[in-house]
Amino acid sequence: MEERPVPQPGSPVGLHRVLAPAGVLPQAAERLDTRRELWPDEVRIRVERLNLDAASFRQLEESNGHDGERVRAAVLDIIASRGKMQNPETGSGGMLVGTVEEVGPESPLGLAVGDRVATLVSLTLTPLVVDDGLAAWDGRSEQVPCHGYAVLFGRSIAAVLPEDLPTALSLAVMDVCGAPALTSRVVGRYNAPVVAVIGGAGKSGSLSLAAAKAAGAARTIGVVPHEAEAALLGEADVADVVTIADARDPVALAAAVEQAGGPADVTVVCVDVPGCEGGAVLATATGGTVVFFSMATSFSAAALGAEGLAADVTMLVGNGYTPGHADLALSLLRGHAGVRSLFERRGVKMVR
Amino acid sequence: MEERPVPQPGSPVGLHRVLAPAGVLPQAAERLDTRRELWPDEVRIRVERLNLDAASFRQLEESNGHDGERVRAAVLDIIASRGKMQNPETGSGGMLVGTVEEVGPESPLGLAVGDRVATLVSLTLTPLVVDDGLAAWDGRSEQVPCHGYAVLFGRSIAAVLPEDLPTALSLAVMDVCGAPALTSRVVGRYNAPVVAVIGGAGKSGSLSLAAAKAAGAARTIGVVPHEAEAALLGEADVADVVTIADARDPVALAAAVEQAGGPADVTVVCVDVPGCEGGAVLATATGGTVVFFSMATSFSAAALGAEGLAADVTMLVGNGYTPGHADLALSLLRGHAGVRSLFERRGVKMVR
Repeated sequence: MEERPVPQPGSPVGLHRVLAPAGVLPQAAERLDTRRELWPDEVRIRVERLNLDAASFRQLEESNGHDGERVRAAVLDIIASRGKMQNPETGSGGMLVGTVEEVGPESPLGLAVGDRVATLVSLTLTPLVVDDGLAAWDGRSEQVPCHGYAVLFGRSIAAVLPEDLPTALSLAVMDVCGAPALTSRVVGRYNAPVVAVIGGAGKSGSLSLAAAKAAGAARTIGVVPHEAEAALLGEADVADVVTIADARDPVALAAAVEQAGGPADVTVVCVDVPGCEGGAVLATATGGTVVFFSMATSFSAAALGAEGLAADVTMLVGNGYTPGHADLALSLLRGHAGVRSLFERRGVKMVR
Repeated sequence: MEERPVPQPGSPVGLHRVLAPAGVLPQAAERLDTRRELWPDEVRIRVERLNLDAASFRQLEESNGHDGERVRAAVLDIIASRGKMQNPETGSGGMLVGTVEEVGPESPLGLAVGDRVATLVSLTLTPLVVDDGLAAWDGRSEQVPCHGYAVLFGRSIAAVLPEDLPTALSLAVMDVCGAPALTSRVVGRYNAPVVAVIGGAGKSGSLSLAAAKAAGAARTIGVVPHEAEAALLGEADVADVVTIADARDPVALAAAVEQAGGPADVTVVCVDVPGCEGGAVLATATGGTVVFFSMATSFSAAALGAEGLAADVTMLVGNGYTPGHADLALSLLRGHAGVRSLFERRGVKMVR
């Protein structure tokens, strides 16, 4: 058995892999320790592909004159100097696909050697070594074929890629799987609630509608911005009612949800448009819950909006992680042809 | 009985008082209808004092050369043209103190004529008329003596000022009463939880500590940034344990809470400093809840931080309104000499 030099006790969040600056979390670190040897709760992945974050890739293209060779050199330089793929300008990373190569004896992740997995924690905190110079990548797409290895900590998230679905489809589902999982949990706390999903025809929105129904919603309302989206969502047959409203107009949104059978006991905001906070609150019944999944959500607009409306509603920050979130989302997709066709019609980037 | 011209049905959120632009909420309106006559669910207040929002007053002072006469003229102009005191530059307002003058027969607020109240909804959405030209105000303080009237909608918040406490103290308590109310509700969902309050020596923090204990916390941990605050909180005797940590340093914060008896089942963030999201998440146990009351909270930092740590925690946007919040906070203050002395030592602006 290989000797394992372990200079300090491991930390489930990977503090032991931080080289500089001292004492920060791996995501905030400038440089990570990428040694192959695992701490007892770690897992090593043989990497097959990196999916760079779209904002990061765009920045790299622009700062390198859309020259694929220079983009590739820049990515190699970041990974070599930082020990992780975190764009210093955008701060963002991406995720990876690979195969489990070794599992530490104390790993709690439930993975086995040979599992083909996607990591659902960010590359910004994942120790990474590339050993092929990214030779198979032309630097012109955020899909990066890659040979090398990555390390997952005790507290991490990786999902086994199912064999019955195309990889690209599974990844698209996993990318938004936090929304249906939290929706399911919240809906389960109510008795036969009315659930409104703002942005119901999107990927996270359609899965959230399916999750709400499966968790016991009496009525699901899909809110969309215009006729074309309404037709798409109607064909997918995943909402009990489809209604059209501008989510940035509180009065119009609340009226549309009301007419569709609201107010909602649970309102899920899945549309990445700023200014939806007031409408979501106004469309929600007293004692109800609003779950904000949109990264365009303004914390203060939500807090002050609810206060200004004297609204006794619970407002949740959509945590991207709920245990079992990937499995739940995949099973919702398998069980619902309409959701699957919606994902396919929206275009799933082919990952091979 | 006075004749009441009511041209359209009233709305509990005051849509019927919006003159321009059409169809927006009163807070977003340029101009409100300030007619004296009440819709059936409204209440009219005889105003005694406006408390301008600090950011708004600062902006008015700076844009008017710190000339009290000009500041006063600017405020009068805003109120006359908009029908509400909403600074067009900052978007903010403030609150008011006055006496209930008339109660519509369908008002759900539980107020009686003659009650001395503070409005806990913002001036940014409250129809307001000033009839003394603010003659008693020198334009040099955000405390504005004022004669005139204001209108509260069906869905609004006003708290009766207690007779046993100085007005300034009651107002200071009401200003932060959302935090202890929501803390109490969340703590009550757990069985004898550990509760950490970040910024425990502040006004909202100390009330939240008291609320947590009253709601069944087994252990309350007050986190403060330095020795002086620790001494203050220690003397107030409102936390079971006081610990010092920089809340912007996730690793240090989590370690301090751990040593004080954590991780916390409920973590309440009451400190108005950016960058506390990761630490709050890391200091919280699996299955726990983080309540963000700080307006410096970044929605995306909270959402991505929890995901990056694979943290199964519930994250709440601190809604400033929970029914009964003012009464709860006032009774906590009355019942806890340490909290009261902390408020008094922190300086409560005298309102007369």
